[in-house]
Amino acid sequence: MIYLKNDYCGVAHEKILEAIMENQNSIYPGYGTDEICKKAKNNIAKTFDLDNSLIEFAIGGTSANKIIIGHALKPYEAVISCDSGHINVHETGAIEQTGHKVLTSKNINGKITPSGVLNILKNHKDNHMVKPKMVYISNPTEYGTIYSKNELLELKKICDEYDLYFFMDGARLGALFGSPLNDILPQDLKNIFDVFYIGGTKNGLPLGEAIVINNDKLKEGFNYSIKHFGGLLAKGFIEGISFERAFRDDLYFEIGKKEVELAQKLQKELKELGVRMLFESATNQIFPIFKKNEAMALSEMISFEVWEEYDDEVAIRFVTSYLSCENIVNNTMLFVKNVKSRLNNKKI
Amino acid sequence: MIYLKNDYCGVAHEKILEAIMENQNSIYPGYGTDEICKKAKNNIAKTFDLDNSLIEFAIGGTSANKIIIGHALKPYEAVISCDSGHINVHETGAIEQTGHKVLTSKNINGKITPSGVLNILKNHKDNHMVKPKMVYISNPTEYGTIYSKNELLELKKICDEYDLYFFMDGARLGALFGSPLNDILPQDLKNIFDVFYIGGTKNGLPLGEAIVINNDKLKEGFNYSIKHFGGLLAKGFIEGISFERAFRDDLYFEIGKKEVELAQKLQKELKELGVRMLFESATNQIFPIFKKNEAMALSEMISFEVWEEYDDEVAIRFVTSYLSCENIVNNTMLFVKNVKSRLNNKKI
Amino acid sequence: MIYLKNDYCGVAHEKILEAIMENQNSIYPGYGTDEICKKAKNNIAKTFDLDNSLIEFAIGGTSANKIIIGHALKPYEAVISCDSGHINVHETGAIEQTGHKVLTSKNINGKITPSGVLNILKNHKDNHMVKPKMVYISNPTEYGTIYSKNELLELKKICDEYDLYFFMDGARLGALFGSPLNDILPQDLKNIFDVFYIGGTKNGLPLGEAIVINNDKLKEGFNYSIKHFGGLLAKGFIEGISFERAFRDDLYFEIGKKEVELAQKLQKELKELGVRMLFESATNQIFPIFKKNEAMALSEMISFEVWEEYDDEVAIRFVTSYLSCENIVNNTMLFVKNVKSRLNNKKI
Amino acid sequence: MIYLKNDYCGVAHEKILEAIMENQNSIYPGYGTDEICKKAKNNIAKTFDLDNSLIEFAIGGTSANKIIIGHALKPYEAVISCDSGHINVHETGAIEQTGHKVLTSKNINGKITPSGVLNILKNHKDNHMVKPKMVYISNPTEYGTIYSKNELLELKKICDEYDLYFFMDGARLGALFGSPLNDILPQDLKNIFDVFYIGGTKNGLPLGEAIVINNDKLKEGFNYSIKHFGGLLAKGFIEGISFERAFRDDLYFEIGKKEVELAQKLQKELKELGVRMLFESATNQIFPIFKKNEAMALSEMISFEVWEEYDDEVAIRFVTSYLSCENIVNNTMLFVKNVKSRLNNKKI
Repeated sequence: MIYLKNDYCGVAHEKILEAIMENQNSIYPGYGTDEICKKAKNNIAKTFDLDNSLIEFAIGGTSANKIIIGHALKPYEAVISCDSGHINVHETGAIEQTGHKVLTSKNINGKITPSGVLNILKNHKDNHMVKPKMVYISNPTEYGTIYSKNELLELKKICDEYDLYFFMDGARLGALFGSPLNDILPQDLKNIFDVFYIGGTKNGLPLGEAIVINNDKLKEGFNYSIKHFGGLLAKGFIEGISFERAFRDDLYFEIGKKEVELAQKLQKELKELGVRMLFESATNQIFPIFKKNEAMALSEMISFEVWEEYDDEVAIRFVTSYLSCENIVNNTMLFVKNVKSRLNNKKI
Repeated sequence: MIYLKNDYCGVAHEKILEAIMENQNSIYPGYGTDEICKKAKNNIAKTFDLDNSLIEFAIGGTSANKIIIGHALKPYEAVISCDSGHINVHETGAIEQTGHKVLTSKNINGKITPSGVLNILKNHKDNHMVKPKMVYISNPTEYGTIYSKNELLELKKICDEYDLYFFMDGARLGALFGSPLNDILPQDLKNIFDVFYIGGTKNGLPLGEAIVINNDKLKEGFNYSIKHFGGLLAKGFIEGISFERAFRDDLYFEIGKKEVELAQKLQKELKELGVRMLFESATNQIFPIFKKNEAMALSEMISFEVWEEYDDEVAIRFVTSYLSCENIVNNTMLFVKNVKSRLNNKKI
Repeated sequence: MIYLKNDYCGVAHEKILEAIMENQNSIYPGYGTDEICKKAKNNIAKTFDLDNSLIEFAIGGTSANKIIIGHALKPYEAVISCDSGHINVHETGAIEQTGHKVLTSKNINGKITPSGVLNILKNHKDNHMVKPKMVYISNPTEYGTIYSKNELLELKKICDEYDLYFFMDGARLGALFGSPLNDILPQDLKNIFDVFYIGGTKNGLPLGEAIVINNDKLKEGFNYSIKHFGGLLAKGFIEGISFERAFRDDLYFEIGKKEVELAQKLQKELKELGVRMLFESATNQIFPIFKKNEAMALSEMISFEVWEEYDDEVAIRFVTSYLSCENIVNNTMLFVKNVKSRLNNKKI
Repeated sequence: MIYLKNDYCGVAHEKILEAIMENQNSIYPGYGTDEICKKAKNNIAKTFDLDNSLIEFAIGGTSANKIIIGHALKPYEAVISCDSGHINVHETGAIEQTGHKVLTSKNINGKITPSGVLNILKNHKDNHMVKPKMVYISNPTEYGTIYSKNELLELKKICDEYDLYFFMDGARLGALFGSPLNDILPQDLKNIFDVFYIGGTKNGLPLGEAIVINNDKLKEGFNYSIKHFGGLLAKGFIEGISFERAFRDDLYFEIGKKEVELAQKLQKELKELGVRMLFESATNQIFPIFKKNEAMALSEMISFEVWEEYDDEVAIRFVTSYLSCENIVNNTMLFVKNVKSRLNNKKI
């Protein structure tokens, strides 16, 4: 079975597991107040060129989104997202559980548009409606696409003008920096976002996201909010050990780069074979479209998610991870060709 | 330095780490929907003699309490706890964040009393007050004490009579079953509690609590609530691997037993030396009382928590863990005697 | 100044004020537990042919929506509304404040469509998304349109099939039954809706909405939820006196009928003059479209809300109320004609 | 029947009803944005000597408490109250519904003590517990007692030192200023409290409380919070008309004074008869203690609330209102004497 279902399918990258094993007999006080968490934060600060940012760990993406949004917004304030945003679709109402509305505008290739944001702002002007106060993006997006630096700066300009927080969900940040199309640097993030997080779960760590708060207004009491919203890990040092290693010797970026290379190679070869893509992906998630009987046949050998169903066709998602081997592209292509030829023959 | 500060101070018990390493190259689908979680649940079901109970994992104690209470109660319902209960004191309002009031009565040795519960019920009779609907206990308690089977049955009787859910926070359940004073069996729990959880974090696992729902009414939609309240781990299989191992070959109970033995031996020897205890502990947490200058001197060599301060004295907490070595008792006693004699001599 | 801005612009209909004055020296126990509330509920039960329904009062529309949705849904459940629904747009996140997501589909003439509901159901199938559990409609809608009996039964069929609660916000229920296009009877409502409310605020009462719960599952503890969500009026008997009078001698329907007649007459005459409507209204809200300079000129003499702005035109809202006099149609038409002719002349 | 059950038992004081009737044909825009609300706020500002305070109306006490606390506190912050405080006991968890914990200390005569506040502050020092941020008092208290100016200043000093908001629930503020023991002036309030409210419901108005925010930090977005938490009245002008009249010609104070005089006279005469009081009341609520059979006999003629039950005795509550006539004292005393003599004779 070829595994292309998701990128959180293994315990952790071998080098991170090694670091954990090295700490088998270490004793640390709980709740992230230890030396190894401090070291991890130092490594992150160096990598992202952070001076005064607050860095804290949360256990996963939904938890990080819940804590950040619940912490930052006043009761009547709302967060703007595109309709395909993770906080709008895939969090079982975890954001609304903190009392906040998610305002949405239509995505273009998984991305929110400046005009979408402006339109929401135009329509929310008095106290009979929620007050928009934050723009949320995921980058890479849920559709494998990424924002260009220009696109980010355009959104930031709106945020500055309308006094909105700009928040980036970086659950797949490793894949962003591994993308050949990416034109931002780690050290750019502090200047663009009031708050963002560096995803661990989907980039080879056993768990954990590192939240980086750049805006001073959002720092006070954040460690209270982490516990209040249920995201404080007793053994925070496991997050510390993992992130310390991930941001030593550029391991984090190495993982992201490898994932993306494989997925991009696969996308390229599929396209050469004539397979259409739902989106032109820039990262480790690709969305080929197959006939329904082809997809059915593929599922016997490849593990993947179905993304969207149409009359005769179906868009599926292939995701590579740190566990994907070099031969995954060849094996997948072989199988796809085989299926396509077999089903065509049958029809004749 | 002798470490007696808490029982979540190390990554994980060596046998659990071993199990994790064995899975280094395993691939599992996310969110706890895999074979290893199934195996872990089977091991737990066998151990606790469960037939129809629903078993799900949460990432930690506060998260488990938040999910269970938030899931079980209607908006206007409240949970009864003794004043020293973890949900009342040490969760930064995580329970109230779900909209529910914690009703409290005074603890006796860390335990809630039947008369305390009845008094709350007597005083909450109409729609101008919250409606009590659940009794929460932690067992062992925050004070190292445990409930006898009779005490539990007496509380259960009240719960049955007044249609209240009975919920046990078993964050230190290993220490309960390791206690020489304990008179309940794992298989008793399903008959006593509507819901309880088996603590992993404080009993040698890297993270995770296993929630056991016995009451059918509470099962529906529970997997939605786990995500809604922010406690669903993407790599749920790490919880699966850990619990599968903990409940294979009685490892979980072995860890608890060893912890308790060391703490009880230490309590006994301290008492023989004339040190008073704040509570007569039955588990792995003990609460000796020292003069303030003694405690100060002890803190140079022993890592511990200060529990309560008085004029001249202070109650401190010593906790043993799976990392505590056999010689921890001797070393601690030696140091205590040394401090006591030194400070007495000085005074003369 | 001609007042066409809204239908909650006066204290109360004279007959209701009379009833209040008659009770000037009456003494009632608080919180709706009195004889006059009982009488009001009896009048309502008779009018709507209710046997076992629970009737309770809330102070206003947003409060009623908040209480009903917050009470009915489990934490992870969501309510379906069309995008123009009051709960989605005009309640400052009051629904999300109870922790619930509002799932939306595009409105057609202010109404939700069966296919819109089905599409949402199709896309919400596992615990990574909220669970749809209620369909919310406002009837009349925010756009002055109404649902036909067939449309309601089609939606109800879906609700039955998918085990969803069907909830009608009847903030302007008087206008529904006053509409010449309406084909449902008061006694139909109990068979169609699990819960609905009868709006008082927008139909001549000083305040208050009467919530009618037909589904037994939703009755338990509802009077707790009213207080929990902040909507219990101490002097509930004011709601009682008002609703008792409104549902005596068909006053409620008389008010609605008069309002609608005036608005419909105005709509008809405007259309005859060649004014286009944004929606073909069936009730007491109409939405004529004027050139921007016309609307500007009209605003000097008529008080109204601007609904939607376009390049050269603007859709405005005229609403009639129990305070609108017979001559409001003539006066408005005169002024409209005057403005149109004046501005045309100017242009020439 | 003598009515001493509560002070929200009639529609409204005759002069306020008169003002409402005078507005029978007035037209006002909704939601408190009208001339009469502005006038009402001016009258209040003059009376309480307010310069820059924000004044807004809420529909009742629980709603006001919910909005103020939900608006002022960050998610992890908590409000301190004495255990008998209305927000702790009698609001069906409406405060917790906003996500905030109510921290309590034991009341002395219905009042919170400085040492009680300090003790809570001492015990809440890190992010594993909620962060106390507000002190709530009701004045008069639920037990009819009042705070002296010195007591208030002592609490304020603590609030200043520890950066806590100081909030007064003035649901019975009329009775405070009507008390012969009161030593504060209306114009003192702005200097003592960050926020307080002036109760209408329990002082002769049909509904409504006027919230006064003195601390600039709490003003921003407050009109959003009123709607978000469900307390915005569409016909806000009814609150406006009522408060405008209440604070014209000192009507508000006149009502409070009369209520208190009657209750105090009743308390004095009962004491002279040898009846003990649960608390020495200073306002319009008194708490005489009777034998159980006496209380039973009294209930045939007097409507009152039972406050606390003991073995043989019972403390009951008598409350006077603007509807209480001068002869209520004589009539009550006559009946009490009659009951006491009858029951004593019987026993002989």
